[in-house]
Amino acid sequence: MTLQEMGKQAKAAARRLALASAAEKNNALLAMAKALEESREIIMQANSRDIEHAKANGMSKALLDRLSLSYERIADMADGIRQVAALRDVVGEIEGYVLQNSLRLQKTRVPLGVIGIIYEARPNVTSDAAALCLKAGNAVILRGGKEAIHSNIAISDALKSGLKTAGFPSDAVQLIKDTSRETATGMMKLRGYIDVLIPRGGAGLIRAVVENSTVPVIETGSGNCHVYIDKSADAKMATSIIVNAKVSRPSVCNAAETLLIHQDIAAKLLPKIAADLQDAGVTLRGCEKACEILNGYDIVPASEEDWETEYLDYVLAVRVVSSIDQAIEHIINYGSGHSECIITDSHAAAERFTAEVDAAAVYINASTRFTDGGQFGMGAEIGISTQKLHARGPMGLSELTTVKYVVYGNGQTR
Amino acid sequence: MTLQEMGKQAKAAARRLALASAAEKNNALLAMAKALEESREIIMQANSRDIEHAKANGMSKALLDRLSLSYERIADMADGIRQVAALRDVVGEIEGYVLQNSLRLQKTRVPLGVIGIIYEARPNVTSDAAALCLKAGNAVILRGGKEAIHSNIAISDALKSGLKTAGFPSDAVQLIKDTSRETATGMMKLRGYIDVLIPRGGAGLIRAVVENSTVPVIETGSGNCHVYIDKSADAKMATSIIVNAKVSRPSVCNAAETLLIHQDIAAKLLPKIAADLQDAGVTLRGCEKACEILNGYDIVPASEEDWETEYLDYVLAVRVVSSIDQAIEHIINYGSGHSECIITDSHAAAERFTAEVDAAAVYINASTRFTDGGQFGMGAEIGISTQKLHARGPMGLSELTTVKYVVYGNGQTR
Repeated sequence: MTLQEMGKQAKAAARRLALASAAEKNNALLAMAKALEESREIIMQANSRDIEHAKANGMSKALLDRLSLSYERIADMADGIRQVAALRDVVGEIEGYVLQNSLRLQKTRVPLGVIGIIYEARPNVTSDAAALCLKAGNAVILRGGKEAIHSNIAISDALKSGLKTAGFPSDAVQLIKDTSRETATGMMKLRGYIDVLIPRGGAGLIRAVVENSTVPVIETGSGNCHVYIDKSADAKMATSIIVNAKVSRPSVCNAAETLLIHQDIAAKLLPKIAADLQDAGVTLRGCEKACEILNGYDIVPASEEDWETEYLDYVLAVRVVSSIDQAIEHIINYGSGHSECIITDSHAAAERFTAEVDAAAVYINASTRFTDGGQFGMGAEIGISTQKLHARGPMGLSELTTVKYVVYGNGQTR
Repeated sequence: MTLQEMGKQAKAAARRLALASAAEKNNALLAMAKALEESREIIMQANSRDIEHAKANGMSKALLDRLSLSYERIADMADGIRQVAALRDVVGEIEGYVLQNSLRLQKTRVPLGVIGIIYEARPNVTSDAAALCLKAGNAVILRGGKEAIHSNIAISDALKSGLKTAGFPSDAVQLIKDTSRETATGMMKLRGYIDVLIPRGGAGLIRAVVENSTVPVIETGSGNCHVYIDKSADAKMATSIIVNAKVSRPSVCNAAETLLIHQDIAAKLLPKIAADLQDAGVTLRGCEKACEILNGYDIVPASEEDWETEYLDYVLAVRVVSSIDQAIEHIINYGSGHSECIITDSHAAAERFTAEVDAAAVYINASTRFTDGGQFGMGAEIGISTQKLHARGPMGLSELTTVKYVVYGNGQTR
């Protein structure tokens, strides 16, 4: 089947989904979850094939872990779908008003239509993304990585059989089985069929989509996040936040990558922080002053590149700054607009930081690790937008919808 | 100056604007309006040069009219800026809630940053767009057409002197003076400098921007709008709405291009409508049945191309449909997602039409001509989005902003 044909089928399914009631959609989601659990043997067999290939190709241990499924992980995927079913439906929400000429304007939340997702090794994205898109009334075209292709086919087959059981068009969830580069670039050109394309994966994938897509894109994921410890910061709070932001899960986009610390507090506080980070296995890359203060600790001089790097690892860049101005300048120069944090007891400093730092989420006295749809109370997320258009920060169900003005008149002309 | 340098200056200006109070921005807007009026001689001289060139190049009368300025039109532009100053500021609007762990989330409205506008012959866009972008706290890079270049330079010089008087960076408004194709395509690649690009103009311009831009784009303007007269429609209302939707201003995107009429009412109602349209100078292109019913009227057979065409002229396509289903199918196949109207007295028909027609604005018993920021109560608009991402329908000040999560904690970690 050509991509265009898949696009046509997706559009037809989207028309049906847009008219489905919340109860019908939830019913379909529960059927999808059930089908997933019932197919767990088939999914595990398919996953074994992927794992075998991956091992033969020398995949790293970390990536192998992402690719691997287990009965427990499949049960988690099914539970994830049930959690999405339990969320309140956002489609149909209305904001409105009446104009002077008595026209009644109802700005109504409606599905986007067809959503495309391009992703990499993790097969659970297949079910997570399908469930969220469906709940928001959208059809989805999935294009996962070749490493997980057998797992993805087995998972999407299960989801489709669930859809069918519930009387929904199985084209509401389609997986592109050809994982050649051509299908990814072809998807980026499916204007008129795909309403929005969301890449989920590494910086290279996201850049390729942004540069080549004629379909509107929502950029996700890149997080070069900073924690700035102001001179008025509480020492204990500062230590606990930076340690949490760095080590609670270094591989995710909301983890901290650079610590900025005010010079008035650095000599006293940095050694304590460095000791705690070292205990957690973190190595440091410091500016000249930081290296001076931390003489004897596990620290090497930082280069320009370090300020730009999203390590996603047990590494932290450290810079001593002369003022909050320099901290803000640094973040403006090197930040990726994801999550930024100030630790301070100064109201004026907090006000300046939140006003001047341009990012999806700006924290005062809390870890950057909270930037997450689940943590923010959205129930689930399809990704974290680091662009400013349409959605910024964690994207939940509302971000997978658009609006339509429904205007009621009684003969008005202009 | 290179485009990149302009981008850098715009970013610096945007940082300043993002921190400006509503009073400061309004003060700057009033100074811009005043400077525009004080420069009216210079602007008129520059406009004369553009008109001269245009005449020498054989520009059509309609386009010449769009290009021409007068003292009155300059006064209107200045008044337009003052009206924007009078609008309520949307920057800083907050929606928020407190999480279980006591984190206080404040979703705060903030400017987008730098907005790029690519437009064609009308010089008033220069001041209209600059005013709206500034009011929403954004810097703007303008790239008008070569036909209006002298007018645009004179207008932007005036706006810049107003900004300066008010103590604002004059780089908040920049005009690209080189109107070669390279500057337009260069602008489309200014990722990292321009946050969103809005093309305003014909279908060719918009297509070029959508296909070539790596900067996020908001598509505007294309409007193949339909009026569907249901069998239960009030005859008088139906006639007055279709005549208004077609002839009140045929050159704009919210004008009707195709009339769909239910077969049960067509024989009785079409002749009356055709007579009124003919009186207003409209020629018709009809399906076989419409031509049969309107034998003797100014009608020619419609081809497939007619259903696809946005005439922007005193021409209307007419199709007799057998049911509301056929009407909805026709609109789904040929509509551009702008404005669609049903005239009906049936509640069930209205419900189906509004649910199934996928467009920015769907009207029941009112003219499509109301799709407009001013009419919708937004005060002013930068264009009408026909895409689904970020903004749909008329774009006012809110649509020129984004959000930032400001999160207040007292030491929370995850």
